[in-house]
Amino acid sequence: MKIGVVSRLDMEESIQLTEEIIEFLLKKDIEVLIDKSVSEYLNKYQNMATPLEEMDTDIIIAVGGDGTILRAQSFISSKNIPLLGINMGTVGFLTEIDPEHVFESLEQVLTGEYEVEKRTQLQFKHNKEISNALNEVVIMTRKPAKMLHMEIIVDDEVAEVLKADGLIISTPNGSTAYSMSAGGPIVDPQVAAFIIVPICPFKLGHRPIVVSEDSEIKFKLLREGKKAIAVIDGQSEEEINYMDEIIFSKSDDKACFVRLSTGFYRKIREKLIKGGIID
Amino acid sequence: MKIGVVSRLDMEESIQLTEEIIEFLLKKDIEVLIDKSVSEYLNKYQNMATPLEEMDTDIIIAVGGDGTILRAQSFISSKNIPLLGINMGTVGFLTEIDPEHVFESLEQVLTGEYEVEKRTQLQFKHNKEISNALNEVVIMTRKPAKMLHMEIIVDDEVAEVLKADGLIISTPNGSTAYSMSAGGPIVDPQVAAFIIVPICPFKLGHRPIVVSEDSEIKFKLLREGKKAIAVIDGQSEEEINYMDEIIFSKSDDKACFVRLSTGFYRKIREKLIKGGIID
Amino acid sequence: MKIGVVSRLDMEESIQLTEEIIEFLLKKDIEVLIDKSVSEYLNKYQNMATPLEEMDTDIIIAVGGDGTILRAQSFISSKNIPLLGINMGTVGFLTEIDPEHVFESLEQVLTGEYEVEKRTQLQFKHNKEISNALNEVVIMTRKPAKMLHMEIIVDDEVAEVLKADGLIISTPNGSTAYSMSAGGPIVDPQVAAFIIVPICPFKLGHRPIVVSEDSEIKFKLLREGKKAIAVIDGQSEEEINYMDEIIFSKSDDKACFVRLSTGFYRKIREKLIKGGIID
Amino acid sequence: MKIGVVSRLDMEESIQLTEEIIEFLLKKDIEVLIDKSVSEYLNKYQNMATPLEEMDTDIIIAVGGDGTILRAQSFISSKNIPLLGINMGTVGFLTEIDPEHVFESLEQVLTGEYEVEKRTQLQFKHNKEISNALNEVVIMTRKPAKMLHMEIIVDDEVAEVLKADGLIISTPNGSTAYSMSAGGPIVDPQVAAFIIVPICPFKLGHRPIVVSEDSEIKFKLLREGKKAIAVIDGQSEEEINYMDEIIFSKSDDKACFVRLSTGFYRKIREKLIKGGIID
Repeated sequence: MKIGVVSRLDMEESIQLTEEIIEFLLKKDIEVLIDKSVSEYLNKYQNMATPLEEMDTDIIIAVGGDGTILRAQSFISSKNIPLLGINMGTVGFLTEIDPEHVFESLEQVLTGEYEVEKRTQLQFKHNKEISNALNEVVIMTRKPAKMLHMEIIVDDEVAEVLKADGLIISTPNGSTAYSMSAGGPIVDPQVAAFIIVPICPFKLGHRPIVVSEDSEIKFKLLREGKKAIAVIDGQSEEEINYMDEIIFSKSDDKACFVRLSTGFYRKIREKLIKGGIID
Repeated sequence: MKIGVVSRLDMEESIQLTEEIIEFLLKKDIEVLIDKSVSEYLNKYQNMATPLEEMDTDIIIAVGGDGTILRAQSFISSKNIPLLGINMGTVGFLTEIDPEHVFESLEQVLTGEYEVEKRTQLQFKHNKEISNALNEVVIMTRKPAKMLHMEIIVDDEVAEVLKADGLIISTPNGSTAYSMSAGGPIVDPQVAAFIIVPICPFKLGHRPIVVSEDSEIKFKLLREGKKAIAVIDGQSEEEINYMDEIIFSKSDDKACFVRLSTGFYRKIREKLIKGGIID
Repeated sequence: MKIGVVSRLDMEESIQLTEEIIEFLLKKDIEVLIDKSVSEYLNKYQNMATPLEEMDTDIIIAVGGDGTILRAQSFISSKNIPLLGINMGTVGFLTEIDPEHVFESLEQVLTGEYEVEKRTQLQFKHNKEISNALNEVVIMTRKPAKMLHMEIIVDDEVAEVLKADGLIISTPNGSTAYSMSAGGPIVDPQVAAFIIVPICPFKLGHRPIVVSEDSEIKFKLLREGKKAIAVIDGQSEEEINYMDEIIFSKSDDKACFVRLSTGFYRKIREKLIKGGIID
Repeated sequence: MKIGVVSRLDMEESIQLTEEIIEFLLKKDIEVLIDKSVSEYLNKYQNMATPLEEMDTDIIIAVGGDGTILRAQSFISSKNIPLLGINMGTVGFLTEIDPEHVFESLEQVLTGEYEVEKRTQLQFKHNKEISNALNEVVIMTRKPAKMLHMEIIVDDEVAEVLKADGLIISTPNGSTAYSMSAGGPIVDPQVAAFIIVPICPFKLGHRPIVVSEDSEIKFKLLREGKKAIAVIDGQSEEEINYMDEIIFSKSDDKACFVRLSTGFYRKIREKLIKGGIID
């Protein structure tokens, strides 16, 4: 077995736990690859240091919050390597293990007692560039309080023409993240759909739309001169210009997660309560 | 070809158009069955009078609004007879033809130039009774301003425990009807899902949930003594008591509609604008 | 000093605490009047038994939740007697003391160390009947899922024409109660305003409206034949018919509350968190 | 009488109408001052050219949309000069006259048959800088999809601690503008209040809060390092840093508008319908 390890670096406890995990794995004679940024930060394990995008392991362990998972996934989004998230953040929808159960859970993983759950990713085609989003792509105005004029075309039919601060295209996985803040529904990952949610729409009648994941969603800016910004999973940004070709569709690549237990609604409710999002 | 005809009776123009349609069809030597209530109201066509539930025709023409369609469908919900709605109401999401194009559209139908679109229905099992809903089942408190305590179980997992005035379980077809008024998203009928929407929930964090149409949704009242009422497609009512077994799932029966044109989003936007729901 | 005592009767702890409070007051030689229903329930204190509406005391102590306070206030709404609520419910926006601090708080009250806070009440004129609401008046459809057509006139100007399941007219005090469930804003009681909130409006653009408390709000049903029901503070009901004259305005009578501490937002947040309404 | 004239410059019809208005006024022997940018654009009327901030006229005519009015008001916000807006935009909540009635309306104004309506402005104190907002101040994250951690203190009491993309503090006048897009209620300008509306809050329970206009509202960023941006009436921007002192309160200066007709709700409904915000 070959295991990759990555960690958030802005939190002492996270770094420390990461070291403990590495030592634990090495004692078990597991082959370990360590994210280059972690190895540099620790000034240690240089011989195992590997850039995330080159990791070719059976599993990648990510120590941190949802941001850490989204960052890791952004580097390996077409590789189908199962991620195992260890929650050092406040909510952690995407993480699987809480810090207090790390080592017993790792024992379980090493014996192969786990499932791999696959989650749909959203493909974002921007002119010739293609990227994958696990949660969502947000298209926002460059100027706070200056709205975008947008057209959304679903399977060659105009679905919406609207003025708003921005727009979210979310996967079911992302339905409990940014999409929810903007008023989107919770969507069970078993539902083969994407969610289109306007941010602060000028007209009051606009509602979130749930479309088939087999649909092709085109996005157009309707005013020359105005620029927008696309943010992919909160990780990377691209500038959007008038006349840019923007197409959302289902990615061929799935995000893979190591699961030790099941229960979508149980997990969602636990996370929502823990994160103080609901009571 | 054998065609059934039904109409709303509380609107003079609707009755009149219905008579014209019957005469038009008879002139074409079509075999026509007429809903008993219409024939009685007109005091005419007694020999063609048939109760809706016994109609066994190739098509049923329904003259009226969405209510007329929902009522007709409630009688034939397991028969797969395509409905052709002629819109005499204000919105008419479920109707296909506007009154001004009736006869040219009927010509087209008689030559067979139409599609039959199938829409998923929601099966509502209440103790031993089973019914189908095309749009939604609403479970409401019997006492205005006195909330229900409810539990919603999706595939044997508790998805929500909440206090609210009521709850809507809607099909994608119903997502532009009552569900939308209560804050639900628009769901493309291509999405294989049901929508669970709380009505005036006590706690603020509750959101509409979109679940797979293959899920089984159980509903429980959590307080002894309180009664609720279930309203199926706005047509029929059933009293719900503590400890009643209530299960929602996908119906084996589809609702069938005669379609002369396509374009879900175009139609939705037209209807929403016409009905003054959006601009 | 003369003190009235009332309690909810459906909760053993509440009854028991009420008895302890009565004994405590009697030992202090306070003149005590006891709500008739409480005295009958306890089969005790018959000589002090007084119907709530005849109580003419310096303070009334209400043991229970917001419902108990609203019920007590409904009987004395034009008498300016300060209410002191002891919270035996889950939330208790209107109560002032938690059960664990009852006796030290009562000592404080008996020495006169308290403020009387006055809250605006809503006057509800229905044909010739006049009543006061401390929280809100809800006007609801008699038939679940059958909307009302309504017109709302503010100071002789049509402010809204809408179809909805119902409508709430709320005071700032009621803004954290039913109005909030239906999507209304939190309104500081220092703001001299009423809030008009539609329940499940058919058209999507309808928003809560905050109007001056000096405005006169008229309500009309626009369809003959349909009936509605008005619920005042969740306590009493009146049937509303087509052509009924319905006028909301500021009541001349204030609701009075004994306050031992201050801090509107602190209290609201505590209550919202305690009641699990927010986290 | 002395009249100032200002116009939006990015719209041919607006410029043209502005010229016609100037000629009309000059023919009536009115003393006319022309906004410097207009005079430069037209390359004409140089002798009447005056910077907006130096205009000291009885009335200022603003030809354009709400943006033009807000821009003009931002220059004269402490001067009490009544603005007369001529609507060349799509909505024009702040404008009074439609282009087709310009000259008859101007005749009416010149004879003095008009009212001056005063609207409350929001004072925004940012460290030592003070500005006035007619509609709202928006505080937004500098990074799309990266939330701000904020604390809102009303009259020295913590009213909210929240994570969100941003926050709006709005006047009643601004309640039909940006605040409404973010979910705020409509507030009658007779209500002496400000509205606090979160933009895409992380936690779901956050609601708009309506506070007294006599309250002092303090705003704090809770995380060092993160920057925000404040946008005043969509016109000017200021960078907000950790530990900045930010206080909102009622401005001593009123915004003044020339009114030829009355009817708040009529006007709001007309504008909302015209702008396609409601139907």
